[in-house]
Amino acid sequence: MSTALLTDHYELTMLRAALRSGAAERRAVFEVFTRSLPAGRRFGVMAGTGRLLAALADFRFGPAEIDHLSATGVVDPDTADWLASYQFRGDVDGFAEGEPFLPDTPVLVVEGTFAECVLLETLVLSVLNHDSAIAAAGSRMVAAAGDRPCIEMGGRRTHEQAAVAAARAACLVGFTATSNLEAARRYGVPSAGTSAHAFTLAHHDEAAAFAAQVAALGAGTTLLVDTYDIPTGIANAVAAAGSELGAIRIDSGDLAGGARAARTQLDQLGAESTRIIVTGDLDEHSIARLASAPVDGYGVGTSLVTGSGAPTAGFVYKLVEVDGEPVVKTSVGKRSRGGRKDVLRRLGPDGLAVADLVIPRAPLDRSAAPRPAAGASAARVPGGEALDGAVGRRDRHLLVPLMRGGQLVADTLVGAAGVARAREHHRLALESLPAGAREVSFGRPCLPVVVAAAEPRTSF
Amino acid sequence: MSTALLTDHYELTMLRAALRSGAAERRAVFEVFTRSLPAGRRFGVMAGTGRLLAALADFRFGPAEIDHLSATGVVDPDTADWLASYQFRGDVDGFAEGEPFLPDTPVLVVEGTFAECVLLETLVLSVLNHDSAIAAAGSRMVAAAGDRPCIEMGGRRTHEQAAVAAARAACLVGFTATSNLEAARRYGVPSAGTSAHAFTLAHHDEAAAFAAQVAALGAGTTLLVDTYDIPTGIANAVAAAGSELGAIRIDSGDLAGGARAARTQLDQLGAESTRIIVTGDLDEHSIARLASAPVDGYGVGTSLVTGSGAPTAGFVYKLVEVDGEPVVKTSVGKRSRGGRKDVLRRLGPDGLAVADLVIPRAPLDRSAAPRPAAGASAARVPGGEALDGAVGRRDRHLLVPLMRGGQLVADTLVGAAGVARAREHHRLALESLPAGAREVSFGRPCLPVVVAAAEPRTSF
Repeated sequence: MSTALLTDHYELTMLRAALRSGAAERRAVFEVFTRSLPAGRRFGVMAGTGRLLAALADFRFGPAEIDHLSATGVVDPDTADWLASYQFRGDVDGFAEGEPFLPDTPVLVVEGTFAECVLLETLVLSVLNHDSAIAAAGSRMVAAAGDRPCIEMGGRRTHEQAAVAAARAACLVGFTATSNLEAARRYGVPSAGTSAHAFTLAHHDEAAAFAAQVAALGAGTTLLVDTYDIPTGIANAVAAAGSELGAIRIDSGDLAGGARAARTQLDQLGAESTRIIVTGDLDEHSIARLASAPVDGYGVGTSLVTGSGAPTAGFVYKLVEVDGEPVVKTSVGKRSRGGRKDVLRRLGPDGLAVADLVIPRAPLDRSAAPRPAAGASAARVPGGEALDGAVGRRDRHLLVPLMRGGQLVADTLVGAAGVARAREHHRLALESLPAGAREVSFGRPCLPVVVAAAEPRTSF
Repeated sequence: MSTALLTDHYELTMLRAALRSGAAERRAVFEVFTRSLPAGRRFGVMAGTGRLLAALADFRFGPAEIDHLSATGVVDPDTADWLASYQFRGDVDGFAEGEPFLPDTPVLVVEGTFAECVLLETLVLSVLNHDSAIAAAGSRMVAAAGDRPCIEMGGRRTHEQAAVAAARAACLVGFTATSNLEAARRYGVPSAGTSAHAFTLAHHDEAAAFAAQVAALGAGTTLLVDTYDIPTGIANAVAAAGSELGAIRIDSGDLAGGARAARTQLDQLGAESTRIIVTGDLDEHSIARLASAPVDGYGVGTSLVTGSGAPTAGFVYKLVEVDGEPVVKTSVGKRSRGGRKDVLRRLGPDGLAVADLVIPRAPLDRSAAPRPAAGASAARVPGGEALDGAVGRRDRHLLVPLMRGGQLVADTLVGAAGVARAREHHRLALESLPAGAREVSFGRPCLPVVVAAAEPRTSF
C-alpha cells in the first residue's frame, strides 16, 4: 500500500512550484532534530527508524494517488508526470534505532534533490515523533522496574495502528512482551495476556471462571483476582490452579498494599512460586514507588502509549544546506543551525559519555569520514577536555548510514530484525550514559551538547 | 485488510476458555463509558464511530491471522475453527458521532454473545479513545476561534495513520481543512497548504521564492513571510503577488503583535483583502488570546493531535449484563454500574439541556422503546424538575441504533458521508448545551448526569 499520501498538501505545492523555478533539482540536506526534551527528561530515544525505512520503500505515487491529487487540483499535469516516476534515490544517515539523544543534535539526515527530500517531511516526522515519544517514556519505565519485567498493554488507549507501533517501540527499550497481537505478527514481539474482569463476570461465580481458565490455559496462567474481594479471589485462584499457579494479577486499589497482602496469603497457601503482576494506570513514577513491594511484573498502558505526558518527541525537519551552502531561517523565534553536521559522542576514560559534539561536516563530501571543521578547535567539553578538532579514539559516530541511493544499507534495519537490533543497541548505549541518566526523578539532560555550527556568527 | 489482530492477546485466551466453559454463548451487553473528563473540560465529543463501524466489517480472521495465532499457541484448534467462521452478528447502539457526552454515561452499547463481543474490546476502545480525544480538544479550538477558520496541520506530530484519523476528527468538530492528503482522499476533508520555510531557503532569495510560488500557484496563494525579516517578507510578498495576494502566514514570534504590524503594513501596501494566517504551537488558549488581533485563520498542529493535554479519552469497555442479569465488578477502586442502560438528554423549555439521565433498560427488551425503570421515579434534576419515570416530550434519546445483526443500519454512517453527518450533528448538538459550555477556561462538566442504575444498592 502506498504511503505517499501520508503527507501534507504543502509538500506537493512546494514541489509544483520548485519544478517550475528550478529549485527542484538543487542538492539539499534536511536534518531532523528536537529543540528540547520534555521537561525533566534526561535523554530522548531514537525510535521508528525501521518503520520509517520500510515506509520510504512504499512512498510511491501510483495512479490512485495521482488521480486524487490531480482531481483536487493539488498538482498540475507536469507535477503529476514527475510524481509517476518518483522514488526516493537519495541518502539517509541517522542515529541507530534505540540510540539515546539530546536536543539540538541531528538524529536523521536526508540528502538528495530538494524535490525528492521535501516530499518526505511529514512521513519522517510522523514516524519518528510518535515512536520516539513512546520509546523515551518506556525506557524510563524499564529503568524504574529494574529486573522486573514490563508488559506493554496500552493499545486500547491509542489509535489502533499507533498501538502496533507503540508496542514495537516499547519492545525496543526493554519491555518483555506486549498485549498487541498485530505487533507480535508484524515485528516478532512476544505477546501475552490471559483474561479481563469480563471473563469472571461472564461465569456464575469466580471459582467457575478460574476453573474454566485453568482448564483451557493450564495452571501456569495468570488469574485476575480483583473482580470481587481480593483475598477471596486469591483463595479461589489457588483452589483452582493449585500451588503451581503461574501468577495473579491485581488491577485496582492500593497496589503496594495489595501486593504485600497477596504475597503473604499466597505463601501461606503454599503458592510461593506464584508471581504477582500489577496493572492499572502505572507510569514510571508509580513503578518506582512499587520497588519495595513484592511485585513480579508490571503491565503498563495509558502512560506508555501517550509518552507519559509527552506524546510527541518534538522533532522538526529543516533544510540546512542547498547546493553545498548552509541555509538557515533567521527571523525571531524558533532557530536552527545551517550546514550539514555530524555528531560524535565523546567517551571519557571510564567509558562513560561526557558530551555529544555537533560539528560541521564538509558539504557534499559524501565519501569521506566525518571530520570536524576548524571552528571546532576552540571548544571545550564542560569538565575540561579540549575538543582538539580531531575525531578521538573514544569518539563514537552517532550518525550511521541507513540508505544510499534510495536503497537500504542493510535488510536487518527493518522488520523483526530491526527491532531486535534496536533493542540490543539501546541496552548497550544506556551503559555508556553518565550515572543518574536513568533516574526517573525530574532532572536535566544527562549530557552537554557542544555545537560548532557552520554559521560564521555562531561560536561558543 | 483484516483488522482482527488489532486487538489484545487476552481476548483470544478469554475466547478459548469461554468456548470450553460454555460462557461463550451467553448473551452479553458491553458498555463503553468514561469515568471522568480531562480536568477542566466541559464535555467530551463522541468521535470515531464511522471508522469503528467500518473496521468492524473487516474484523474477520483469515488464514494469515489464524496461522499466526495457532503457530504462537495463542489459540487451540477448536478456537481456530471458531474464528474461521467468526463475524460479528450482534447489535451496536451508540451516541451519534459528534455528540457531546458527559462521564458515567454509556456512549456505545455492544450486544451479542459473550464470545463475539469480548473480541471487540481493544478495537472499539482504540478507535473511540483516540478520535474522541482529538475531537474534544478540537471543538474547544473551534469555539475559541469564533468565526475564523481553523486548519488542521498536526499530522507530523503523531503516528502517520493516527494523523489521518485526527484530521477526520478535527473536521467533524468544525475545522475547515486539513493539511493531510490521505484524510482528503479517504474522507473528503478539504486539504490545504502552500509552502514551508524550506521552500524559501531553497531559492536564492525570498523574492525569487515568492515569485516562483506565485507563478505556480497564483496570486491567491498564501506566502510564508517569516523566514528572514517579517516586514521585508511582507513587502516581498506584495511585490510578488500584488494587492490580490491571498494570504500571508506567520509561524513564529509574537503572533498578536506580528499580526497587528502585518495588517497595518498590508493595508498601507493596498493589500487590504490579503488575509493573515497564524501558526506555531497554537492551542485553544492561545487562539482565545488572539481573538482581538487581526487574524483571519489559525493553523493548529501539535496540541490538536495530542488532545491538548488529554491524548486519550479514557473510555473503558465493561460487561454489564449476562443472560439478562446485571453484572458488576465490586472490589475496591474503579467501579462501574451493572445492567444495560439508556441515556436521555433532558431539554428545558428554552431548548437547552438541563441534564443527562442514565436509566436502566429492561434487559434484552430489544424491540421496545427505552423505558425508565421504577428506580428512576425518585430522581430530580438539579434545579427542580422531577424525573417522573416517563420519557418526556423534550427528552432526546442519545443512544441510537448503529448495527443490527452485524449490519450497518445506514451506509451514511461511514466514509465521507459519515464525516459530513457527524459534522452537522456536532454543530446542532452544541446549540442545545447550556451557556458557558464552550468556554475554554477551566470549568466543570456542563451538564449534571443523573444515574438510576439497575443495582439494587445504588440510589440517588
